[in-house]
Amino acid sequence: MGEFDLIRQVFQPVAEATASPLLPLGLGDDCAVQIVEPGSQLVFSIDTLVEGVHFPLNYNPVFLGWRSLAIATSDLAAMGADPVCFTLALTLPDAKPDWLTGFAQGMRQAAQAFGLTLAGGDTTRGPLTISIQAHGTVPAGSALTRSGASAGDLVCVSGTLGDAAAALLWLDSDNDSCDVQWLLSRYHHPQPRLSLGQTLRGRATAAIDISDGLRADLQHILTASAVGARIDARKLPLSAPLQVLAPDRALELALSGGDDYELCFTLPPTEWAGLERVSAVDRVTVIGEVLPEPGLWCRDANGDRCVAAGGYDHFGGGACR
Amino acid sequence: MGEFDLIRQVFQPVAEATASPLLPLGLGDDCAVQIVEPGSQLVFSIDTLVEGVHFPLNYNPVFLGWRSLAIATSDLAAMGADPVCFTLALTLPDAKPDWLTGFAQGMRQAAQAFGLTLAGGDTTRGPLTISIQAHGTVPAGSALTRSGASAGDLVCVSGTLGDAAAALLWLDSDNDSCDVQWLLSRYHHPQPRLSLGQTLRGRATAAIDISDGLRADLQHILTASAVGARIDARKLPLSAPLQVLAPDRALELALSGGDDYELCFTLPPTEWAGLERVSAVDRVTVIGEVLPEPGLWCRDANGDRCVAAGGYDHFGGGACR
Repeated sequence: MGEFDLIRQVFQPVAEATASPLLPLGLGDDCAVQIVEPGSQLVFSIDTLVEGVHFPLNYNPVFLGWRSLAIATSDLAAMGADPVCFTLALTLPDAKPDWLTGFAQGMRQAAQAFGLTLAGGDTTRGPLTISIQAHGTVPAGSALTRSGASAGDLVCVSGTLGDAAAALLWLDSDNDSCDVQWLLSRYHHPQPRLSLGQTLRGRATAAIDISDGLRADLQHILTASAVGARIDARKLPLSAPLQVLAPDRALELALSGGDDYELCFTLPPTEWAGLERVSAVDRVTVIGEVLPEPGLWCRDANGDRCVAAGGYDHFGGGACR
Repeated sequence: MGEFDLIRQVFQPVAEATASPLLPLGLGDDCAVQIVEPGSQLVFSIDTLVEGVHFPLNYNPVFLGWRSLAIATSDLAAMGADPVCFTLALTLPDAKPDWLTGFAQGMRQAAQAFGLTLAGGDTTRGPLTISIQAHGTVPAGSALTRSGASAGDLVCVSGTLGDAAAALLWLDSDNDSCDVQWLLSRYHHPQPRLSLGQTLRGRATAAIDISDGLRADLQHILTASAVGARIDARKLPLSAPLQVLAPDRALELALSGGDDYELCFTLPPTEWAGLERVSAVDRVTVIGEVLPEPGLWCRDANGDRCVAAGGYDHFGGGACR
């Protein structure tokens, strides 16, 4: 069996297992076709993962299949989109059947969990690189953006922060304690906050997913919205395993560790009641408030300190501007 | 200036120069948003180019910018789509300003020539790899596919064949003759047959773009349509430069050379009159006919020989099956 036959044989079942009436063609033509219902707008984002840069060498292919699709899908969550489908551009040094089967298995699990159809793709030979474009839809004009935060809004996050960054310390460990395994699952199996994002449509004034760390990603909202914020370090949601395993570093990991794929968003206080219904599932925490002047301040037991201003990282103290 | 600032500074003007009311958000959010008009369906395809595999090491970045977008766009042409926008996943070993500026220049030229908006992207560090997803639209249900060819249809191609494959022989040459330069332009600056593809909607029964060579790509149509074909080698459209520079290899290059990005399509004879209007621009040539039984036959001065059957390459003569 040739390489192309193998690749087709591995991914065709993923497409079939995730088939949708919104994708009438199936794999194998020059293009895929997607039906976008009247009144909806298409929302899409492309993300690339490179071996040795975004995931370790010889990373488990089942985890990689899940993780790469979850990361692309997290951008849909940040826009409040309903997931529809995705394309996969897979560059591989060689076509090893075991690796391909594992990768497709993890990807199928994620696709089914998130409600995404494999719509098409391209497989090429080269250094291991995965680009995925995820497609969703929103009612016209309702996509969440980064630019609507205004002074007085609450700054909120979902879930807990710093877990995936802490997990990197145990990636090669054979520690099978429940705490370590839980942290590792946060790295291997990120859960895009799709349902929360959809609930935020029409409520949140700005949203972003936390891929580069709370500090950097919240700053993207502040820059796009031309505002500032003060967050309270004592309110950052920390998981019990993180506090047990890295008590001295938990706060810093929560502030600047990436890879959690939680949502950070801003919300007028009047909208808070609408979120209480979902907060049990996605654990929404209010961590601060939006200020009229640029700058990102963090309050802790010692008072306020500036953590970022104008996109430049001043972490370590000092005044903003 | 940091790498991300440089990349933003280089690609932001491409997005602005190609802005469209169908893309209301612009660059810089978690996702792009595309308006798909009622009655239209989205058509999309992703393609990857890897340095050293799909283009030479140290390839001119201006040419690369054009060529990579043209290749992705050619899939839209094969579906008969009206072009709308594209995303760019760019993996780079380093951010050299001259390279980035050249690449963005070629990409902007192509985007403007084809009518595509830069909708979004992702830039990562790693071996030079370019994935582009092109988006178009068609009136609902009118996308051209590979699967509708039936016995008696004409087999047609646009333009001339074999030029880009012949150009590879002169890529490193300093021969500045008009013939060589013309062949090189066919490799460096492919022209997706967007207008022809749109004209074929409702007329052609199947279509594909010729990226892997006529023989392989026509076979994709025949397999998807469960039919065969006979083509006449003496009717293959060969450019004058190809016949001057590679007289002995012209036929083989036209049959199996890739990278021309012409269209191959099947057409009921009754539809031919509808194409005569466009044939002057896109040089449509009838090269054969569709047969009811599987197999791809090529007639030349010595009679018929089988060139492919069931997707397996029997080139070199012998009976099919």
